[in-house]
Amino acid sequence: MATARAASGRWLYGRHPVVAALANPERRWRRLAVLAGQEDEGRGLITAARAERRGDGEPIRILDRSGFAALVGEDAVHQGLALEVEPLDAPDLDDVLRQAELTPRAVILMLDQVNDPHNVGAILRAAAAFDALAVIVAAHGAPPASGALAKAASGALELVPLIPVVNLARALERLNEAGFWCCGLDERAKQHLAELELGPRVALVLGAEGAGLRRLVRDGCDYLARLPTAPRMPSLNVSTAAAVALYALQAKAGN
Amino acid sequence: MATARAASGRWLYGRHPVVAALANPERRWRRLAVLAGQEDEGRGLITAARAERRGDGEPIRILDRSGFAALVGEDAVHQGLALEVEPLDAPDLDDVLRQAELTPRAVILMLDQVNDPHNVGAILRAAAAFDALAVIVAAHGAPPASGALAKAASGALELVPLIPVVNLARALERLNEAGFWCCGLDERAKQHLAELELGPRVALVLGAEGAGLRRLVRDGCDYLARLPTAPRMPSLNVSTAAAVALYALQAKAGN
Repeated sequence: MATARAASGRWLYGRHPVVAALANPERRWRRLAVLAGQEDEGRGLITAARAERRGDGEPIRILDRSGFAALVGEDAVHQGLALEVEPLDAPDLDDVLRQAELTPRAVILMLDQVNDPHNVGAILRAAAAFDALAVIVAAHGAPPASGALAKAASGALELVPLIPVVNLARALERLNEAGFWCCGLDERAKQHLAELELGPRVALVLGAEGAGLRRLVRDGCDYLARLPTAPRMPSLNVSTAAAVALYALQAKAGN
Repeated sequence: MATARAASGRWLYGRHPVVAALANPERRWRRLAVLAGQEDEGRGLITAARAERRGDGEPIRILDRSGFAALVGEDAVHQGLALEVEPLDAPDLDDVLRQAELTPRAVILMLDQVNDPHNVGAILRAAAAFDALAVIVAAHGAPPASGALAKAASGALELVPLIPVVNLARALERLNEAGFWCCGLDERAKQHLAELELGPRVALVLGAEGAGLRRLVRDGCDYLARLPTAPRMPSLNVSTAAAVALYALQAKAGN
């Protein structure tokens, strides 16, 4: 179980997450670990990391396979790279709403009890690809922003703010006050997402597969909509649903 | 490593895959395994399985956690259910092309070196959700149609034929002869998928993340197109890309 603990800790792993974190000026980090034998492939990163490092001590560690497994977990696809990081300073919802005022179109995602780190990471990646402004999660229960989440995000953890809030229903109210239409995705809804006229500010709310949205969150939505899936397979994986919904909103906006 | 072998064997696991396989009249199966303590929840399935069972011998096994792990692997999210199955009789490409003639609109997916079973399973699920007719894979190198693949497919393995072919380039020629426009997804392509007029018969070709399409497969495509992703995150996970592309084609067709 030591490996599971390590995997949920402060280490990012995998090429994309590590490269993106080193490229992010907002990201503070402590140590870069490189798999023994991959020093050549990692040389550019090592040089960059050494140059950028301001504190004391050696920032690079060369580790063998078991050393890596001890850091990031046995099953992590680490590609020979890991980076010990400090958490990003998450902007709060007010910051994001101010930013939204400056853009003609803004989409924000909200996740209700989506607790699988792979799903949250994949949703961040889709959010980056389709230019969503932020992903809001409940402060209680959200998976840690590192390890498996960062790997699935493929660098998007450095690009899209992940905003923990104490109360999702209250966050929906604030989004509403800021001019956002809040739309929950629900496979049992009658209307298709693309049929709604949601305007240029949309908060898209997704629940965990199976359970769906909790009552209070659902009640805080202005609309419920579904994707045009076939009766034989009405539900999608939540990260797939997020990507399709973001695409649908973007296509609707004519971008 | 024994668990990895078991996980890639003939056992399906997880509620959706097992329920879907038992509901599929084309699926032959041998034994249903239920986690000890979950006999009540599994009672309906057990009754159905007993009633349907025609061969000799007891078709139900009640196993403890370690017994389950021995069947499906340590890390499998089996939800207390597993089913030992025989492979489905896959239709060949000719069967599918004949079926395509009977429908006004037909989309077929082709995967080039997408070897991760989770991705292939998730693509089957998206194919079921957006009514694709089949998923073509290379006979050599495709992951086994069980275990992790079936779990990610969430029942779609019983719904969408997975067709192994010896030669993908030759399969593209045959799709072409049958009136399909073959479109490869490539994040470096100039045109957006939704901008193309592909008509009612489309073969959508996806390569592995990073590597993309191999030369011979790419050359066999009539078009290359991309999804409208942002420069900061041009690539999507291949199963996400498949789902978004299928949605885009469906939306274009006005369904």
